[in-house]
Amino acid sequence: MKRSIAELVTELRRFAKARDWDQFHSPKNLAAALSVEAGEVLEHFQWLTEQQSRELPARKRKEIALELADVLLYLLRLSDQLDIDLLDAASRKIKINAKKYPAHRARGSAKKYTEL
Amino acid sequence: MKRSIAELVTELRRFAKARDWDQFHSPKNLAAALSVEAGEVLEHFQWLTEQQSRELPARKRKEIALELADVLLYLLRLSDQLDIDLLDAASRKIKINAKKYPAHRARGSAKKYTEL
Amino acid sequence: MKRSIAELVTELRRFAKARDWDQFHSPKNLAAALSVEAGEVLEHFQWLTEQQSRELPARKRKEIALELADVLLYLLRLSDQLDIDLLDAASRKIKINAKKYPAHRARGSAKKYTEL
Amino acid sequence: MKRSIAELVTELRRFAKARDWDQFHSPKNLAAALSVEAGEVLEHFQWLTEQQSRELPARKRKEIALELADVLLYLLRLSDQLDIDLLDAASRKIKINAKKYPAHRARGSAKKYTEL
Repeated sequence: MKRSIAELVTELRRFAKARDWDQFHSPKNLAAALSVEAGEVLEHFQWLTEQQSRELPARKRKEIALELADVLLYLLRLSDQLDIDLLDAASRKIKINAKKYPAHRARGSAKKYTEL
Repeated sequence: MKRSIAELVTELRRFAKARDWDQFHSPKNLAAALSVEAGEVLEHFQWLTEQQSRELPARKRKEIALELADVLLYLLRLSDQLDIDLLDAASRKIKINAKKYPAHRARGSAKKYTEL
Repeated sequence: MKRSIAELVTELRRFAKARDWDQFHSPKNLAAALSVEAGEVLEHFQWLTEQQSRELPARKRKEIALELADVLLYLLRLSDQLDIDLLDAASRKIKINAKKYPAHRARGSAKKYTEL
Repeated sequence: MKRSIAELVTELRRFAKARDWDQFHSPKNLAAALSVEAGEVLEHFQWLTEQQSRELPARKRKEIALELADVLLYLLRLSDQLDIDLLDAASRKIKINAKKYPAHRARGSAKKYTEL
């Protein structure tokens, strides 16, 4: 059954509590775990061309889906431990980015990406 | 205004389209960006004790909130480019973890964490 | 003046001692710092094509040189704190890799890289 | 047989050439691989206390030695592809750090580490 973000957060809380894992889930440790999991995602792509990465076979995408899930789960757990509302922060960040890279100026030049 | 995951995905799609950025957003590049952003989160914690990481001042948590947002935004963008339903994958992953670490056995021993 | 690996290790030891930084340089913290610095290296490359990454202007290579130096310095400090002889380990690892990927079989197929 | 940095660089060059792997070893890909390997190092430490990380059993240190070797090998390969003299850059970086954190001021305050 597919859960919402709020439901995932609650379930992760319960999951850690039932296993007495809160002692390991300091923000510092969770930040390390988040980085480790992001590295495991990248491992799948490191030797591919960009084109190959756009045409992954279904089997490979299925594997990667579970790695992306790991990143999300640690991200939610870390946000929860820091008492941060992640969806709210993401909404604010999008707004900040919209101001920083106005569409009419970013288009074409794409300076963010092409400046060497 | 706080958005749902589905709304964030749509908005990120529109954002990239308006700036002609899809050319840069290959899964390979997004996986690299995800890892870079996770590293920026970790940077805040690297020299803190675990205890300090549990007692961050509000100002610091506000900064970190925007870094966590960056991780989420790239995670959503990457999932979208790979046609992966992230919430569904996360729900499945929680179920897998529940089988892998049954509460009655994980409790106390916490072997996952303590085995050197 | 260009130093050898052994000289760098000694100097880093002295550097930390003079600043009373050994308390911060636990292997755990240094492993986090190593990962953060590797992320900063990757940041320079995340939106480039592979071709662009092979043709960096001198100014950019100079910037990256100092980021690579950061990775090396934390790597040496971490090895030293763990009492690991890094050059010896690297020599052994090359030997292991040579057995794992025999040239006559790896050539052409390059399975390590191309298997999706 | 334990090799020097210069010997390792030469051997890695020969290793890639014999397997026709230079096509995969763009600086971009090597920077991703460096980050992935640094993540594998961090994985060993993520749930340990700092104290535990200072007291690793010999068997564990032996495992980690080979992970650190991987980081060094990609670091050398990347430096070589970018025509960067890594030991020279590290020597310069130490000098920069010495100016940035003068011992008499860094001592005690350790602001670099403790500022929240």
